Amino acid sequence: MAERFLAVDWGTTNRRVFVLENGEVVGTARDDKGVTSVQDFAAEVAGIRQRFADLPMLLAGMVGSNIGWRLAPYVAAPAGVPEVAAGLLRIDAKTAIVPGISTMDNGRPDVMRGEEVQLLGAVEAGLVPRDALLAQPGTHCKWVDMTDGRVTGFTTAMTGELFALLRKYGLLATQIGGEVTRGRAFLQGVEEGCRRDLAASLFGIRAAKMLGTRDDDDAASFASGLLIGADVAARLERNGHDTVHILADPALGGLYAAAVEAHGRHAHIVDSHAAFVAGIIAIRDQS
Amino acid sequence: MAERFLAVDWGTTNRRVFVLENGEVVGTARDDKGVTSVQDFAAEVAGIRQRFADLPMLLAGMVGSNIGWRLAPYVAAPAGVPEVAAGLLRIDAKTAIVPGISTMDNGRPDVMRGEEVQLLGAVEAGLVPRDALLAQPGTHCKWVDMTDGRVTGFTTAMTGELFALLRKYGLLATQIGGEVTRGRAFLQGVEEGCRRDLAASLFGIRAAKMLGTRDDDDAASFASGLLIGADVAARLERNGHDTVHILADPALGGLYAAAVEAHGRHAHIVDSHAAFVAGIIAIRDQS
Repeated sequence: MAERFLAVDWGTTNRRVFVLENGEVVGTARDDKGVTSVQDFAAEVAGIRQRFADLPMLLAGMVGSNIGWRLAPYVAAPAGVPEVAAGLLRIDAKTAIVPGISTMDNGRPDVMRGEEVQLLGAVEAGLVPRDALLAQPGTHCKWVDMTDGRVTGFTTAMTGELFALLRKYGLLATQIGGEVTRGRAFLQGVEEGCRRDLAASLFGIRAAKMLGTRDDDDAASFASGLLIGADVAARLERNGHDTVHILADPALGGLYAAAVEAHGRHAHIVDSHAAFVAGIIAIRDQS
Repeated sequence: MAERFLAVDWGTTNRRVFVLENGEVVGTARDDKGVTSVQDFAAEVAGIRQRFADLPMLLAGMVGSNIGWRLAPYVAAPAGVPEVAAGLLRIDAKTAIVPGISTMDNGRPDVMRGEEVQLLGAVEAGLVPRDALLAQPGTHCKWVDMTDGRVTGFTTAMTGELFALLRKYGLLATQIGGEVTRGRAFLQGVEEGCRRDLAASLFGIRAAKMLGTRDDDDAASFASGLLIGADVAARLERNGHDTVHILADPALGGLYAAAVEAHGRHAHIVDSHAAFVAGIIAIRDQS
């Protein structure tokens, strides 16, 4: 833990650099140089060292995908910090890429890349129990079964992406572009989501406008509630945990928390930034 | 029935004109002058009469919506030919617009506009029983309970629109742009659709590529099967009819038929063109 090192959370559209020392963040910077805007990764990495310090470096996220620098093969679940650390892809003596995790749970393939650092870190930092259900809402929401500190199974739902597509394109775009608030319309959407019948429930948003049964000011919140509600309903149907530990910013995390509570479970919002830091330090320590 | 009249199936992006005489189509023409490309509807209607004949005219479809000529208010279900005929919006002594049908079945609002002519016509022409479950696949698939020849309830699913959005935009666009065929991958998608968990099943298409468990040549068929399968599963869960009567062209109708048969029900594809003609004649006769 005494050792200093650099960590980069390197996603598709942006990246964040951390300078870590004695388990603490002593420097950080964020920019929009995601993997899709980078051609020469070796030069970028040299630039990061030049800017911060010539230290060992761990890279996590899409930088290890087929659109990144080098492909770091997925580690199969169940996977904890030791398995992920053992799967590091070494670029050179002081640079390595953290692998993602894959599963074939119930014959359904699923993958994560980058999220594993936060998830395992949440356990390492004691932010969540070692046996828990975690959710990471976002464009592609991860739902993760953690057993004794290891990722034992997970499901990804493209809930955020569907909402974004519907807001931008197609029939509902003119209706659901507004602000989403955690109020009555959102909770009505969550309830509708329990039907698990998205294609029909979505058309209902149009029909409600035609028949004047819902104010269009509420349509975005209802649609968000519907999509998040269907996601939550599908996941909780097969999972008995009392509490869902949510790694997200307060706004999106709050919406998922409201949907989880509407299903009679508890929601606990976790500091995802602290979780990442704890996770990358643990991977470094065990590598 | 001896009387001659004109019928226009006037949709959002195109229209079809029929010249009807003694219950037969004696002339027809199709063009892309849908309601969104028309400013002066009176001039268009005059043009149709000039081209074909100066006859009474019935207009059906989006021409009666808030983006059409004049708003023809929905007739509430249950609605058969008599109710729809009684709800005609008279523009002048020889021109009228066919109203759509609305429902608030189970507290879920739904609307149709244009489809009612085909649906009621299918019964009038004896193409389907007077008590039946009908499906009209398309951008927005209509599922209709017909009881004693009346539309008693219906559900619209934006299955086709979701597929189009996913093919064109977002994460899966590069994977699912190919041809859809009614083979093994399609049926695997139908089975996955039974989970009623679209957002997760869709991400599974990405994961299958990452893990190499499905050839990308099959991804479009799998995705189509998934979306159609989820639609069929949601509808058949609450409907006991042995047979689904499908009004669609053979290609799309065949995909829905395959999904219906995978659920152990019978599928019967109905000539939707003949159904429209029978429907508009019945509405004219009873008005």
